[in-house]
Amino acid sequence: MKPVKVGILGLGTVGGGTVNVLKRNAAEIARRAGREIIVTRASSRDLGKPRICSTEGIAVTADPYDVINDPEIDIVLELIGGAGPVKDMVLAAIANGKHVVTANKSLIALHGNEIFAKASEKGVIVAFEAAVAGGIPIIKAIREGLSGNQIQWLAGIINGTGNFILTEMREKGRDFADVLAEAQALGYAEADPTFDVEGIDAAHKLTILASIAFGIPLQFEKVYTEGITKITRLDVDYAEKLGYRIKHLGIARKTGEGIELRVHPTLIPERRLIANVNGVMNAVLVKGDAVGPTLYYGAGAGADPTASAVVADVVDVTRALTSDPENRVPHLAFQPEAIKDIPILAPDRFKSAYYLRLNAEDKPGVLADVTKILADHRISIEAIIQKEPPANEKAVPIILLTQVTLEKEMNDAIAKIEALPTVTGQVCRIRLETLG
Amino acid sequence: MKPVKVGILGLGTVGGGTVNVLKRNAAEIARRAGREIIVTRASSRDLGKPRICSTEGIAVTADPYDVINDPEIDIVLELIGGAGPVKDMVLAAIANGKHVVTANKSLIALHGNEIFAKASEKGVIVAFEAAVAGGIPIIKAIREGLSGNQIQWLAGIINGTGNFILTEMREKGRDFADVLAEAQALGYAEADPTFDVEGIDAAHKLTILASIAFGIPLQFEKVYTEGITKITRLDVDYAEKLGYRIKHLGIARKTGEGIELRVHPTLIPERRLIANVNGVMNAVLVKGDAVGPTLYYGAGAGADPTASAVVADVVDVTRALTSDPENRVPHLAFQPEAIKDIPILAPDRFKSAYYLRLNAEDKPGVLADVTKILADHRISIEAIIQKEPPANEKAVPIILLTQVTLEKEMNDAIAKIEALPTVTGQVCRIRLETLG
Repeated sequence: MKPVKVGILGLGTVGGGTVNVLKRNAAEIARRAGREIIVTRASSRDLGKPRICSTEGIAVTADPYDVINDPEIDIVLELIGGAGPVKDMVLAAIANGKHVVTANKSLIALHGNEIFAKASEKGVIVAFEAAVAGGIPIIKAIREGLSGNQIQWLAGIINGTGNFILTEMREKGRDFADVLAEAQALGYAEADPTFDVEGIDAAHKLTILASIAFGIPLQFEKVYTEGITKITRLDVDYAEKLGYRIKHLGIARKTGEGIELRVHPTLIPERRLIANVNGVMNAVLVKGDAVGPTLYYGAGAGADPTASAVVADVVDVTRALTSDPENRVPHLAFQPEAIKDIPILAPDRFKSAYYLRLNAEDKPGVLADVTKILADHRISIEAIIQKEPPANEKAVPIILLTQVTLEKEMNDAIAKIEALPTVTGQVCRIRLETLG
Repeated sequence: MKPVKVGILGLGTVGGGTVNVLKRNAAEIARRAGREIIVTRASSRDLGKPRICSTEGIAVTADPYDVINDPEIDIVLELIGGAGPVKDMVLAAIANGKHVVTANKSLIALHGNEIFAKASEKGVIVAFEAAVAGGIPIIKAIREGLSGNQIQWLAGIINGTGNFILTEMREKGRDFADVLAEAQALGYAEADPTFDVEGIDAAHKLTILASIAFGIPLQFEKVYTEGITKITRLDVDYAEKLGYRIKHLGIARKTGEGIELRVHPTLIPERRLIANVNGVMNAVLVKGDAVGPTLYYGAGAGADPTASAVVADVVDVTRALTSDPENRVPHLAFQPEAIKDIPILAPDRFKSAYYLRLNAEDKPGVLADVTKILADHRISIEAIIQKEPPANEKAVPIILLTQVTLEKEMNDAIAKIEALPTVTGQVCRIRLETLG
C-alpha cells in the first residue's frame, strides 16, 4: 500500500520532535499502521533558524499554504500553536480535504466547535490528542476507553510549569517568584508566564476535557480561573501539616444543576495518588459511574512526549483511512504480518537488583564469607543491614541489597551461600526494580 | 440508524454488570456510539440462579449456541471466562460472522493467535480490553495511544487480590495466610486462589500486554512466574525500612538480546507512584522512547469496572461498523447532534471545602467572632490551628479547614471576617477537594 504523506506546519519544539519520532520509529510505526508514514513538506517561519530535527527529504518552505495546498499531502499537522492566523490555515486545510492533526489547545478550546463542523461537512478527521496533557493519551481514554460510563467528574494537573513551581515550594521551601524565575531559565515557562501561572493554559485544556467527558459544546469563556501567584510558602507548609498537598487543579464536575468548570489552587489529601504527582509531570483523575476512579499520568509537555501524541493521531487517521477489516486497529497492535518472533529470554538471563535475607550464626567472619561469594560472582552490594539476634536465638538476620546482576550469577551465589555451615535455612530473595 | 444487537454468553458478575451498565447508561452510550445498543439474547448455565441484573427484554437461554447462532445478533460478548468450551464458542461466533468482545484473559493469552487469525479471515473484530486490568483502558492506551513509540518496558500491578494481600501485610502488619483468608471471605480471591497468589492470572495479562507492546506473538508458556506465598511480614518490614515497597509485578522488558517476561514479588522505591497503588487497585507503568514513563491506574476487577471496558469495546465495534465520516470516533466524543447545552455553573454556585488563613490580634474573642460568622453562613468547621504569634508581631495566624459549602456563602462570610476590627489584611482562601 502506498505511503501516507504528511505535511507539517511549524518546525519548532513540537514540529521538530514529531519529525524526529516519525523518522526514528519509522519501522515500528509502519508495523502498527500498516502503511509507511512520511513527511514530504514542512513550513517554517524562519528558514535559517537552527532546528532540533534533520530536514533531509523534506521540502521546507516559508509559506504554510505551500503545505496546505500541496495535492499530494493526505494529513496536515498544525504544530505552530497559539491563536491568530493558525485558525485560517486549519480551515483551509479542511477545505482542501486534508485530515488535520493539531497540538493546539487554545485553537481547539476557542474555535473547536466551528472547526469540527467544517470537518464534518468535508468528511475529514481533525485529531487533537496532543492538545491536552502532552503524551498522555487522555483524549482517547475518555472519548473511547470510558465510553460506557457517565463521567461524574474529572480533576487534572494539566500545566507542568505550575506543578513544578508548587513542587519546588513544598520540597525545598522556596518562594514562588524564585521558582518561577528558575522555571523560565529552564525553559519550562514562557518569557510571559501568565498563561501558565494564571491558569489560562489549564483552562483551555479543561474546556476540551469537559466537552468530551459530558458531551457539551466547547466554552472556554465559562471556565472560572484562578492562578497560583498568591500561594505562599506559609500555605504550602500549613497544608502539609494538615495532611494535604496544594495542587493547581482543573476540575469539571457534573451536578444536578449544571456543570462546574474551575481552575484553582486546591488542597488534596496527601494519600491520594494525584497529590504525589510532582515536578513537571501531568495527571488526570477521571471518575466514571461504572469504572470508578481512574488516573492517567505522564509527561505533559516537551518535544518527544508531545510528538508521541501527534504521531498516535497520525496512526489513528491512517488506520481509519483504510478501515477495511485488515486495516482496523490490529488485534495485537501491530499488523498480523508484522508480528515478529523476538526471543523471550530464559529467566537465568534476566538482569535485576536483589534484596536478600538470610539467617546466620552471630559470629565473626560470616559476613566476610557472604560478601566474598557475591564478589566472586561480580555482584556489587548496595546496602547491608545486620539486625540484633532475637532473644533466645543464635541466628541473626542479615539483609542485603545488591546492584543489578545477571540472574544466573545470583542463582550460583545463593547456592554457595546456603551451603555455608554458618548460614541456616534458605536465602529469601526478592527482586528489586527502581523503575526509573 | 437501526440499533446494534448484542448477545451475551454468561450472566455472572461480568455479564450481569454489563447488562446493568448498558441499561443504566443507554442514553449516554447512544449519544456516543451514534446508535442504540441493545441486549436481545443471553445464555446462562443456571437459569434459576439469582442475578445482579434484570433480564427484562432479554431472551435468556441455557444454550450458548442459541446466542451464537442467532442471525439477528451483531456482536457476541463472551463473559463466561476460563478456558475449555469457551474457545469453541468464540470460534463458532466468528465463523458465523459475529464480532466478538471478551473479558477472558486466559482465552486470549492461550488461544489468541488462533482466534485472531480466524477473525481476520472472516473480517470480524475481536476486542478484549476487559481482559487486562479491568476498567483501565490499557489495551487502547498501548495499542493506539502510544503507537508512535518504541515501548522499552512495562511493569504492572495486574492482580488485585495479590495487591490487596501485600497492602494489608504492610499497612496492618498482618500475615499472608490471614489476609488471604479474608480476601477469600470478601470474594476478592477464588476458593482456589492459586491463579492469583501464584501469579498465573498476572502472567496471562502480561502475555497480552507484552504482545501488543512489542508486536510479538502471544506466548504464555514463556513467562517466568513466581508467586507471593513466600513473602513474610519480616520482608515487608525490612523493605519499608530500606525505603521500598514490595509489589507483585508483571514486567516485560525489551533488551538487546530478547524480551524478559516475568511475574514476581518486587521491591520498588517508595517514591514511585506505582509503589503507592494500594488495596485491590491495579496500575500499569509503560515506558515509551518518545513519551517517557506513563501510568494508568484504576479498578482491575469487579462487575461495573469490567463492564466499563466491555461496553467501551462494544462502542468501538459499533463505531467501526459504520465508519463513514459521520460515524468515526466523534471529535467531542459524543455525536455532533447529541451535544447538549447543559448549563455551566457560575462560580458562586460551586460547592467546595475550604482552607482559610487569616491574621488576627492575639486576644480573646477573635476566634469566637470568626466561628460565629461561619456558623451564620451554615459553614461547618473541620479543623482549626492557631499558631503562636511570630516574635515582635501582634498578629497571630489562624488556619481553618471547613466542610463543603456553597461558594456564595463563603464569599459573604469572608467579607464579614475581613471587616472584623481584630482581623488584619485579607483572608487567604484555597479550595480543598478530597477527590474521594
